[in-house]
Amino acid sequence: ENFKIKMNIIKEIPPRRGLGSSGASSIAGAYAVNYILGNPLKLEELLECAMEGEKIACGSPHVDNIAPALLGGITFISSFNPLRIIRLEPIKNAEILVLSPKIEIGIEKTKIAREILPKEIMLRTMVDQIQSFGNLIIGLMKRDLNLIGLGISGDHVIEPARAKLIPKFYDLKNKALENGAYGFSISGAGPSVFALIPKGEGKRIGEILSSILKENGILSEYSIHENSEDGVKIVS
Amino acid sequence: ENFKIKMNIIKEIPPRRGLGSSGASSIAGAYAVNYILGNPLKLEELLECAMEGEKIACGSPHVDNIAPALLGGITFISSFNPLRIIRLEPIKNAEILVLSPKIEIGIEKTKIAREILPKEIMLRTMVDQIQSFGNLIIGLMKRDLNLIGLGISGDHVIEPARAKLIPKFYDLKNKALENGAYGFSISGAGPSVFALIPKGEGKRIGEILSSILKENGILSEYSIHENSEDGVKIVS
Repeated sequence: ENFKIKMNIIKEIPPRRGLGSSGASSIAGAYAVNYILGNPLKLEELLECAMEGEKIACGSPHVDNIAPALLGGITFISSFNPLRIIRLEPIKNAEILVLSPKIEIGIEKTKIAREILPKEIMLRTMVDQIQSFGNLIIGLMKRDLNLIGLGISGDHVIEPARAKLIPKFYDLKNKALENGAYGFSISGAGPSVFALIPKGEGKRIGEILSSILKENGILSEYSIHENSEDGVKIVS
Repeated sequence: ENFKIKMNIIKEIPPRRGLGSSGASSIAGAYAVNYILGNPLKLEELLECAMEGEKIACGSPHVDNIAPALLGGITFISSFNPLRIIRLEPIKNAEILVLSPKIEIGIEKTKIAREILPKEIMLRTMVDQIQSFGNLIIGLMKRDLNLIGLGISGDHVIEPARAKLIPKFYDLKNKALENGAYGFSISGAGPSVFALIPKGEGKRIGEILSSILKENGILSEYSIHENSEDGVKIVS
């Protein structure tokens, strides 16, 4: 049987800022259609459908953003083929500050952010990157916010490349860490940045960081979030 | 004050097979001297001393082998400077089969095994390597032997380079995995290989693997181990 479905998506995630907006739309669309049809597909099968949405939006069927949008918490892609996702418990007792500078990286933002990545890296750099990743994962599983932050802040490959696209990136990072952030890095392909911070510190640190950009003539918006336990759900 | 200490080391770890023999000697020596002197140094400080031993034995002061020999279980190097080690619980309900082909890679074995590594790697390969490492760490923390094995077997960088130095490496690996091993890879700089296997399977799988080498005219020895809860200790 063939169906045609017309869908309006109302979302509060601004697009093209590195916040996983297209992933959220892709999984919301797939989930809603599955719900209307009486849930013929399992949750994991929805990932495959939503990947097609990401392909249209970003040019590649990546699962990085749709997996956490579907399942909530923290997701790790254990295997691509077959696709297998491991869900870890969300980060508790901390909040996430997201700062979005109002700049345009270009029409094909994700493509540019991808092209700026190095094609090859030194073996030594890979070892450092794996060390940071280990700190992140062990931190997540031990619920150690300082260790999670060490992992987040220790990106030796992607961050140094993409930081060039973000004004005052290292000033923002240093100031956030000086002010008590556990960790700081780029959100997705940028230009948004994020900090994992102690609860209740969002407004104070958000004001400090946005003022650094303002002094340099760049407007920005910040928002404060929690790592959600829930993934996608029907709200009405 | 100056002391001179004469030390005889009796150990059952054969040297120059990739089994961490020099690391075991280094930490045993440092631990014994500290004990004789009334334990002036803390455990973590002993790591720094033992690294000097590794420097003499292998040309570089690496902590990869001395940390687990000191602490037991599984160790992760969270930071080099300052040196910080995270100890994870040992792998339970499985045994470790070690197979050592009787071949000589050369006088400076570890140096050769290091020089054969690629200097640069593709970004895509780094992502695959980090995925395997994630499987390993999450597997260790969730006590999931299949996931640990997936991580061990998924080395995309070091294993493909060093496998060339080990006769019939991929035949051994495939046969071990076909016979129920959770994971298989090279031990340290080689030429020993190891498999994480179900308890009680050591002799059966050990005979299969050593017969593959024997058919190719290569003698070998195998041994069966458990991941020790204990690190270094005074035995008498």
